[in-house]
Amino acid sequence: MSVIKVLMIVWFCLLPLCSLAESIDESLQAEASELMAASLESNLGYDIVESLTTEVGQRLAGSEAEARARDWGVKKLEALGFENVRIETFPVTFWERHAEVAEITAPFPQQLVITALGGSVATKPGGVVGEIVRFPTMQSLRDAPMDGLQGKIVFVDEFMTRTQDGSGYGAAVQKRSGAANEAGRRGALAALIRSVGTDHHRFPHTGQMRYEESVAKVPIAALSPPDADQLNRALTHGEVEVKLMLDVTSPGERQSGNVIGEIPGMTDEVVIIGGHLDSWDLGTGAVDDGAGIGITVGAAKMIMDMGKTPKRTIRVVMFGAEEVGLVGARAYAERYKDQIPKHIVGAESDFGAGKIWRFETNFDESKLSIGREMQKVLEPLGIAMGDNNATGGPDMGPLRALGMPVVTLKQNGWDYFDLHHTPDDTLDKIRPENIAQNVAAYAAFVWMAANIEENFRQD
Amino acid sequence: MSVIKVLMIVWFCLLPLCSLAESIDESLQAEASELMAASLESNLGYDIVESLTTEVGQRLAGSEAEARARDWGVKKLEALGFENVRIETFPVTFWERHAEVAEITAPFPQQLVITALGGSVATKPGGVVGEIVRFPTMQSLRDAPMDGLQGKIVFVDEFMTRTQDGSGYGAAVQKRSGAANEAGRRGALAALIRSVGTDHHRFPHTGQMRYEESVAKVPIAALSPPDADQLNRALTHGEVEVKLMLDVTSPGERQSGNVIGEIPGMTDEVVIIGGHLDSWDLGTGAVDDGAGIGITVGAAKMIMDMGKTPKRTIRVVMFGAEEVGLVGARAYAERYKDQIPKHIVGAESDFGAGKIWRFETNFDESKLSIGREMQKVLEPLGIAMGDNNATGGPDMGPLRALGMPVVTLKQNGWDYFDLHHTPDDTLDKIRPENIAQNVAAYAAFVWMAANIEENFRQD
Repeated sequence: MSVIKVLMIVWFCLLPLCSLAESIDESLQAEASELMAASLESNLGYDIVESLTTEVGQRLAGSEAEARARDWGVKKLEALGFENVRIETFPVTFWERHAEVAEITAPFPQQLVITALGGSVATKPGGVVGEIVRFPTMQSLRDAPMDGLQGKIVFVDEFMTRTQDGSGYGAAVQKRSGAANEAGRRGALAALIRSVGTDHHRFPHTGQMRYEESVAKVPIAALSPPDADQLNRALTHGEVEVKLMLDVTSPGERQSGNVIGEIPGMTDEVVIIGGHLDSWDLGTGAVDDGAGIGITVGAAKMIMDMGKTPKRTIRVVMFGAEEVGLVGARAYAERYKDQIPKHIVGAESDFGAGKIWRFETNFDESKLSIGREMQKVLEPLGIAMGDNNATGGPDMGPLRALGMPVVTLKQNGWDYFDLHHTPDDTLDKIRPENIAQNVAAYAAFVWMAANIEENFRQD
Repeated sequence: MSVIKVLMIVWFCLLPLCSLAESIDESLQAEASELMAASLESNLGYDIVESLTTEVGQRLAGSEAEARARDWGVKKLEALGFENVRIETFPVTFWERHAEVAEITAPFPQQLVITALGGSVATKPGGVVGEIVRFPTMQSLRDAPMDGLQGKIVFVDEFMTRTQDGSGYGAAVQKRSGAANEAGRRGALAALIRSVGTDHHRFPHTGQMRYEESVAKVPIAALSPPDADQLNRALTHGEVEVKLMLDVTSPGERQSGNVIGEIPGMTDEVVIIGGHLDSWDLGTGAVDDGAGIGITVGAAKMIMDMGKTPKRTIRVVMFGAEEVGLVGARAYAERYKDQIPKHIVGAESDFGAGKIWRFETNFDESKLSIGREMQKVLEPLGIAMGDNNATGGPDMGPLRALGMPVVTLKQNGWDYFDLHHTPDDTLDKIRPENIAQNVAAYAAFVWMAANIEENFRQD
């Protein structure tokens, strides 16, 4: 057989494969590119974040402010032209802070800047006073003997590593969830942690903690980074005594809810995107997660403005009560569990307001080529191909667990944990041009996902 | 006459002038250079700031903490080997904050981050509620009619310009001193200002204000920059109502004091340097003005460690109660007014912890050449020649007014007003190598000033 003949056979064998791989046809690619161009010229996403953070401000899960945020969400989605706009309610355990004070009482009397972790119990009204015992890492506290911490205040001083992809968070957050339990197990009076964050400002970072059953509940608070430094320096002089007063309450169940709006498609299949509507109480929840609301609502609105009906319904969800344990996401998954096979793909934006730099998928291996095609369309936005281990964002977790494919349009999180869960999470930290790039990527991705023939599961 | 002869005559004429201009002889220059080299290798200045800010923390004028700072000062100066270590006390009007809360009550209920200005009166216990009237600049409030602000809350929104030399402060600080008076004159309920600062963090900047006599005293607070932005955005939606509660007290006179230490010279002439010991109560007073204390005490100690007796006494003063109106500096000037002619030159370090980039003088015109000689010695530190309008630093003001020559070793203040008077003024904001450069410059300058034949006044 001549070389030419071999090559021709190879060519004809590969041709159908190439055709098969072309899931995104030229006209769909062109529409996606037009959406990107239009989105980059639009301030819509930023305007939505501005509206939410100004007109509502902080939106603590279960609070009256979160209820106002739902009303805002319904009005905003209706004003923008979404259909099937609705609130789907669910109960949430409410927790709120009233006052929080800490001070070094000896040897160098001075105030410390702290904040209670969400879910913490209160101290007794006058506060508790105890000697500080420092642990450089969470592991060193886990390894500590069961004896010796009775009546003391545990201080876990572990640092967080700054990374672009947020990978430092997983390790650092363990002290937030675990320090009170390890302290309580050992009879300690209270626990303090160096804030889970990467900045050097005098803001403490709050965040949810959870008590294990059968462990004594001890109050826990986070120190701002400069105050953790200060406590360290004081400890170099010898024994340090701290007073901690947390006035926090958990008055029981309140109502939360997911706010939903749609661009109805021609089938009963759904592409789901969103962010979370609740925020911590200290800032105005601009980067966490007003940005995610603005980006995903903005992207869907850009699609709506094209005036074309998608094949699949595009559903935008503003999840409630994310911060206190993905309560809204779990409620959504429970309510729609029979329809998850019709949920083609999902993506939540909940990693701040940095530009997207990577397109990650969680598709069946047989559908990875579609992901690569999508990334090629997004590439002009500066978006590279990532791996196939996408989480899809926190609120996609329960749906992903039920088998729904997800993507992560991964944002640059280099500065995210400077602001995360602090009073400094405010609108001025957001660059409108970054939001526009995010809107462009979401609009293009969603439009492609809503209109291709294939889905992302095993056939 | 031949050309050679002309040149020789010129040469001989200029020679005495050159000699006259050489105030700093070679051995003195060499000693100054050795001091600079040694200082750049030393961490002494930083260690002093660390000690003060850790072992005392905030040092509000007239407070028990400021008294502890004086004790710290005495112990530190004695431990370092200074002589004639003493506290010179004086009374100061004490003012302190207890609680401060502000919130938008309508149309978008939410907390605002504020702090009372030093000297402000309290609101009534439950707070005051009023409609916000915004003024883009202090001048626009001055220009406002006397009618129309009754029962309203004035909001002066003027921005501050970021500059290397701090020249944006003079204009911006006028709203801090003046807004309450203009508001009170017009029957307003209270006043809010955008913080006098250049950052975008959720820290309010405090600072002293003063009521004019015969004007109704209205409470005044500063909004953090993001909260001033937020108030602005809320105002674009229409009328905004704010509640302000300031619980502050001014319980009368307390004791403050200047802490002084010396390296005795061979004459009764004095070179005076220093910083101020008090700080605002929100941070730990690291850049304002722990740095100045560390730099000037550190510089004198570097000189002491040379083991040579200076011609003139080197006096280091830690001024008390600077922040509330140069009270310590005025007390010093009053006490030493008869000895001011013996005060050869003075310099205070009170502009943060940036590197020194300019050497400014306030000398008699006939002595400007000595300033240029000094700058030449300092030049390897990256210090250029400035003008002859040096202030010498705030606490040198009263002495300068009595005719004492001063210099300003001008620090780079680009970031200074990001931290100034905020909770974020903490040790971690200081780079040890910057302090070392400052110590080097002060040590060299002081050694030269203490040992040259001339002084800086008119002969």
